[in-house]
Amino acid sequence: MIPTKGYAAHSPTTELAPFNFERSEPKDTDVLIEILYCGICHADIHQAKNEYGGTIYPLVPGHEIVGRIKSVGSNAKKFKVGEMVGVGYFIDSCKNCEDGSIGEEQYCDGGIVPTQNSKLPDGTVSKGGYSETIVVDENHVLHISEKLNPAAVAPLLCAGITTYSPLKHWKIGRGHKVAVLGLGGLGHMAVKFAVSFGAEVTVLSGSPSKQESAMALGAHHFIVTSDQQQMKDASSSFHFIIDTVSAKHDYNTYLNLLKKDGTMILLGVPPEMPQLSAYHLISKRRNITGSLIGGIPETQEMLDYCAQNNITSEIEIIAPDYINTAFERTLKGDVHYRFVIDMKKIK
Amino acid sequence: MIPTKGYAAHSPTTELAPFNFERSEPKDTDVLIEILYCGICHADIHQAKNEYGGTIYPLVPGHEIVGRIKSVGSNAKKFKVGEMVGVGYFIDSCKNCEDGSIGEEQYCDGGIVPTQNSKLPDGTVSKGGYSETIVVDENHVLHISEKLNPAAVAPLLCAGITTYSPLKHWKIGRGHKVAVLGLGGLGHMAVKFAVSFGAEVTVLSGSPSKQESAMALGAHHFIVTSDQQQMKDASSSFHFIIDTVSAKHDYNTYLNLLKKDGTMILLGVPPEMPQLSAYHLISKRRNITGSLIGGIPETQEMLDYCAQNNITSEIEIIAPDYINTAFERTLKGDVHYRFVIDMKKIK
Repeated sequence: MIPTKGYAAHSPTTELAPFNFERSEPKDTDVLIEILYCGICHADIHQAKNEYGGTIYPLVPGHEIVGRIKSVGSNAKKFKVGEMVGVGYFIDSCKNCEDGSIGEEQYCDGGIVPTQNSKLPDGTVSKGGYSETIVVDENHVLHISEKLNPAAVAPLLCAGITTYSPLKHWKIGRGHKVAVLGLGGLGHMAVKFAVSFGAEVTVLSGSPSKQESAMALGAHHFIVTSDQQQMKDASSSFHFIIDTVSAKHDYNTYLNLLKKDGTMILLGVPPEMPQLSAYHLISKRRNITGSLIGGIPETQEMLDYCAQNNITSEIEIIAPDYINTAFERTLKGDVHYRFVIDMKKIK
Repeated sequence: MIPTKGYAAHSPTTELAPFNFERSEPKDTDVLIEILYCGICHADIHQAKNEYGGTIYPLVPGHEIVGRIKSVGSNAKKFKVGEMVGVGYFIDSCKNCEDGSIGEEQYCDGGIVPTQNSKLPDGTVSKGGYSETIVVDENHVLHISEKLNPAAVAPLLCAGITTYSPLKHWKIGRGHKVAVLGLGGLGHMAVKFAVSFGAEVTVLSGSPSKQESAMALGAHHFIVTSDQQQMKDASSSFHFIIDTVSAKHDYNTYLNLLKKDGTMILLGVPPEMPQLSAYHLISKRRNITGSLIGGIPETQEMLDYCAQNNITSEIEIIAPDYINTAFERTLKGDVHYRFVIDMKKIK
């Protein structure tokens, strides 16, 4: 067994605290990774507070993991010791069904095994990347280029692939007018990718103060969603809307901004189900759909694309003892755009 | 002016009554049509009762019209006197914009001019097909084959094209498992077309008593939506759901029946907006969309397809003095599947 220091939530209402536990030795096709950086995803906070239900304490969150291979199992062939690698939202998946077999494990009927808070066959619970090490089957580990800043790569493993995958699936790029709703961890990556793919990108935000940073990310236009005239002028003008908002919001207001045959893609699940106007869909044959992270092959493709095009997340690096403050600031939207924990600073 | 007998609603709460009015002589590219049959669409009833708001009384409903050309305007070239023709949901459209120019006038930003209850440039209000005659620009008139029963063709002009258009747009056919939700005027045509296009068709209905008639229409399977076991067994099993229901219903129950990348197509607008579960979309990258009638070129294509494949609506022919009873029976779902008024019997 491998003694590992980490940070864990012990109840919905207490702060995360240092937590020592053990990882199993890498078996068969497993690899042992020494974690360098782990991003803080909004979902980590919801899960720590048991807002989705089903949190098993102690919870070690973290699924935006970058590290180096420390050792490999007897049959592991894909990685060498010392190589830079990543782990994302899931560490195992059904490999038998139709969906899994075509590399989109996240939609598989057989389900995926999330990196954190998932009951494992041996009775233990998966523990995420707010820790020094992790042991993962090599088929769920990603190659990461040495060309990129590894800390700024970490958020690509969740926020990156969650926005890259729908842009690729719906072939969004040159000739498309794309709106990105919300400019947080997901939204800023959606802007970077959509701009990189050649789309004309507009950020929709309730905060006029975000205009400057939206433009700095490469957005071409900015609309303040509370400005009724701006919203009216944008009616029926977008081919796609990437909706990155998990907070309560009205879908119909934004559907109205789509052209005929336009598509709004949901990436977040609001706490209350919004109402849907059939009229807004029918009158322009508009679509509303959703997308969930991405499969392992596409995540590797995304990481390679980022290396080739020098794309990373905008981050603020913190020490592990700042996690609780980072949670609070994330909930207030006070981060540009992702906190990343420097795991070498764990005490 | 052409004196015309018809039936009109004079207020939201009174029954339709005989109503004499005048049509203008056909000008320029107009044609004068002697109406033989007119279908009763659910929308006629809502509009007569002003349930959408905006009804202008006296209202002459009717937009599923079949008749014969009686005379043509000086520049009308498409039709000969005596020819069998149809008129559907709209009698004019913006011909300038992007959408109109590609034959999908119904989605045009410039709007369409509905056959009934639409304010016209000359200050009058369009009067529909519950009448002996109608005058329409020839570009909004359809050719109808003499091979088909004209009474059973009438509902094709709205119920037919409303279901044909989405099936064609989403290329639904062989290899697809398609569910049709609701087995009324729209639903029964959706079943006929989907079966004709080669799809494997399941009818979803709350009424077990409809199973026999669903199978008679060509459906391959039948699910009683109140049977929880049947619904559970059908989880993630359909490529498409054609939702023909305008009454209040829960979208998420049906979204759950879609496979990964499946699409639910709304054809009706419920009185209250249903709630939408983002989770149901995201977890399987499902889509929800809507479709509105069809453009003139596609309506002609549909009518030609029906003539080639001997497809018409299932109807019950009534005399005009039965309209009010037919309205009541339609509201109760007591019709297989469309009432069609024999306008020759107007007194």
